[in-house]
Amino acid sequence: MIVDIDRTDPTPLYQQLKAGIAGLVQGGLLPPGARLPSTRELSVSLGVNRNTVIAAYQELEVEGLVISHVGRGTSVCAHLPAAAVAAGAPPRETMHLEALLSNTWRNSYQRIPTELEQVQGADDDPHALSFASHFPDASLFPLDEFGWCLQSAMRKYGTDLLAGGSPRGFAPLLDYLPSFLARRGIQCTRDEIMIVNGVQQGLSMVGRLFLDPGDTVVMENLSYPGAIGAFRSLQATCIGVSVDQDGMNVEQVENVLGRRRAKLLYTMPTYQNPTSAVLSTARRHRLIETCRERGTLIVEDDYVHELALDGREVLPLKARDAAGGMISMGSFSEILCPGIRLSWIVAPAPIIDRLLPIKQYSDLYTNRILQGALLEFCQRGLLEKHLKRKIAAYRHRRDAMLAAMEASFPDEVRWSTPRGGLFLWVDLPRGMDALALLGKARARGVVFAPDRLFSVEEWERGGLRLGFAAVDEERIEKGIRVLADAMKESASLGTR
Amino acid sequence: MIVDIDRTDPTPLYQQLKAGIAGLVQGGLLPPGARLPSTRELSVSLGVNRNTVIAAYQELEVEGLVISHVGRGTSVCAHLPAAAVAAGAPPRETMHLEALLSNTWRNSYQRIPTELEQVQGADDDPHALSFASHFPDASLFPLDEFGWCLQSAMRKYGTDLLAGGSPRGFAPLLDYLPSFLARRGIQCTRDEIMIVNGVQQGLSMVGRLFLDPGDTVVMENLSYPGAIGAFRSLQATCIGVSVDQDGMNVEQVENVLGRRRAKLLYTMPTYQNPTSAVLSTARRHRLIETCRERGTLIVEDDYVHELALDGREVLPLKARDAAGGMISMGSFSEILCPGIRLSWIVAPAPIIDRLLPIKQYSDLYTNRILQGALLEFCQRGLLEKHLKRKIAAYRHRRDAMLAAMEASFPDEVRWSTPRGGLFLWVDLPRGMDALALLGKARARGVVFAPDRLFSVEEWERGGLRLGFAAVDEERIEKGIRVLADAMKESASLGTR
Repeated sequence: MIVDIDRTDPTPLYQQLKAGIAGLVQGGLLPPGARLPSTRELSVSLGVNRNTVIAAYQELEVEGLVISHVGRGTSVCAHLPAAAVAAGAPPRETMHLEALLSNTWRNSYQRIPTELEQVQGADDDPHALSFASHFPDASLFPLDEFGWCLQSAMRKYGTDLLAGGSPRGFAPLLDYLPSFLARRGIQCTRDEIMIVNGVQQGLSMVGRLFLDPGDTVVMENLSYPGAIGAFRSLQATCIGVSVDQDGMNVEQVENVLGRRRAKLLYTMPTYQNPTSAVLSTARRHRLIETCRERGTLIVEDDYVHELALDGREVLPLKARDAAGGMISMGSFSEILCPGIRLSWIVAPAPIIDRLLPIKQYSDLYTNRILQGALLEFCQRGLLEKHLKRKIAAYRHRRDAMLAAMEASFPDEVRWSTPRGGLFLWVDLPRGMDALALLGKARARGVVFAPDRLFSVEEWERGGLRLGFAAVDEERIEKGIRVLADAMKESASLGTR
Repeated sequence: MIVDIDRTDPTPLYQQLKAGIAGLVQGGLLPPGARLPSTRELSVSLGVNRNTVIAAYQELEVEGLVISHVGRGTSVCAHLPAAAVAAGAPPRETMHLEALLSNTWRNSYQRIPTELEQVQGADDDPHALSFASHFPDASLFPLDEFGWCLQSAMRKYGTDLLAGGSPRGFAPLLDYLPSFLARRGIQCTRDEIMIVNGVQQGLSMVGRLFLDPGDTVVMENLSYPGAIGAFRSLQATCIGVSVDQDGMNVEQVENVLGRRRAKLLYTMPTYQNPTSAVLSTARRHRLIETCRERGTLIVEDDYVHELALDGREVLPLKARDAAGGMISMGSFSEILCPGIRLSWIVAPAPIIDRLLPIKQYSDLYTNRILQGALLEFCQRGLLEKHLKRKIAAYRHRRDAMLAAMEASFPDEVRWSTPRGGLFLWVDLPRGMDALALLGKARARGVVFAPDRLFSVEEWERGGLRLGFAAVDEERIEKGIRVLADAMKESASLGTR
């Protein structure tokens, strides 16, 4: 079996192998029913670890391309998913198209793992009980209040909202934000702020300002898949640093920055995604100091600051940024609703000035209608009211999830106790694989986000993220019982 | 005077020269009051054409950095604009920042001309009578109707609008668009469509899918500055082809494609920006055929299709795309209001599939609240009603502008008679410079968009774009008289 493995490529080997085999299946070179080599044979012939082959086969199985039978090995599925068949018989223009694609695209987007979409796909199933989403509970959305604010903004700002505008953002919202950010302990002027379509756009733009292909970004491993994707799409190298209950391991950061130059350090110091860790105060000081010494720019993602479930908000790194050389982002998408697509970047004015043309040539400016409505929502005190209600609901759900896990999870399973945010993290014991567990849980109608989604390099910390924010207490208890059963079954089977 | 001129750099020489001198002024090496060399001296010492030096000095004068006095030459202004001074005294972290910027950014965004912002800046002056904007008239916005649709969509789709979603777009809008596009003569399925934040985002994404640094895009010269910027930001080479009253010169396209490989051809075949030309039927056939033969992908920007002021809509190129290998974009931002930031890309499904991860890592997805409201607006027939009203108003304004020009412009000035869209184009005779004219007009409270804004290479066609859509008849007549006076004054002065 001819599969290209490129060890200089930052894409994990198991993903390269998976993509290679999927290509053979889609291209018809491995037809339905064909037997794949055993994991042992293939690992020897390719000179890779057998676990790499096992991981690739598992992923192919999750995608419905291959099937494993105990004692009979792995073979290509008799009935391939429609998407795989369609890809296997490209229409004529597709062949022509291939020749036009940029190398930049091939070397970046094409290699970004597709697991995210798989889990999101599962999440779209209205019948599934989903702990996968990090989206807030839609039933808590302030639909009526936001509707009033839309109307009120239309009356107040009139045609200004429908007109074009500056790439920086809607002026009245920019005027308001410094006082809003002051409550987070961030001192800034209007010149140090811009509005973007979500933190994702902010990360993509900051990446374009600083990163050339091959440049290094240090980040937590595990981390937010959208950040990994945004930086990898620019062909940057993402270096992962482990996370424990006190957040990013700053000693490892020091080691990495001592060995190689990194332009950016991307971090979620508060309610880290996916581990829910909060960076300790001692580490915060040391991280800022280390990055300052090494000339590495900190990009802080403070995406869910206000959701302090135990009532004590944690000051962002930016609040300690005396030297004024740090980028911090925050989002109304997370604390209000994802559909609003409104976030901010706060950074030294020279950085904002250089981000403006990137925004301009990306999409000119963010729509102003929602910026106007959001400003109304904030100024009328509705955001605070909404947050109070939401925090109370999420606290109950977190507590229900913790209690249910305590009551039913196997003893060797560990989990975080989040002080805030939307999810918690479960560490699986050795021999219990998150993807295998997902397969079993999905068959019983429960889905979650497995470790691989968040892996910067090979995942070193097996586990899963369980979102509690979007599920009510009754379903949380039911779902956790299902997971507990699936875990017990996995444990009794051991590793494959 | 030490100024770097790099002839291998695609940036026009006069812009390089301008940027170099501006840097010396901002850096304090040329202090306020300092005399610049005469245009003759500098052209000799740098070995460039004297017109290049004249153009650079003119631009610096427009920016308020230098001032020319007849007989006394050119010197640095005594009072520099605040922006120039601020840039001249960078705070400490800026110096540090410079070392972090990506080469990609330096080689792209940093070199994109800033004239656009200058004119936009002028456009922000509420007292100026502006023909510069291509924005529709805000007073024609259907504020109340759109407000109802927002409310109605909130009731109808509820929390779906506030939740997250697919990078492809809001499903009900995607389901609706094929019937909407069928009215433009475009046959497509839902799989061939995606929603983006304006055509600008579409261009930026298509560029990233196809263009590596150094790749070629053929386009009209003159063209939409946002397209030039989006492609240049990817370090692509933009090759301009001239435009006459029948649109893009297809013979020139054939010559260019015969000499070099171009991945993309970007065109606005209908009401071209800025010339308002409509590509003739014969040229349409020939353009499609040529690009098909050469393997160049057509990217059609049909941004203002519905605004057929003489009642006959022009079929887009995509409607003749039997082979299914063409990208077409259209926008609700132009036909409804710019603030809505909603456009679509229609393209073969394999292209859309590859654009989806780019959208995902750019900003996840476009906000759904406005997509829901827009769908209501369309389905209730309000878009058609709005377009009727708008087209009638624009027709009156176009006719008023044409009549006013006929009555007052000097004989040697020529202009287009647009069949649709938002503006017309004025060709200036040799010896009358658009930027000089802008200076004179601005002093009298009238602004417009000069040729250089739209220049792909050195501008070969001196003139200006006059937007009629956003100005009422009375102000149009007044503004045209001001321009006519400024032209007569320029003509009597001759070239500098």
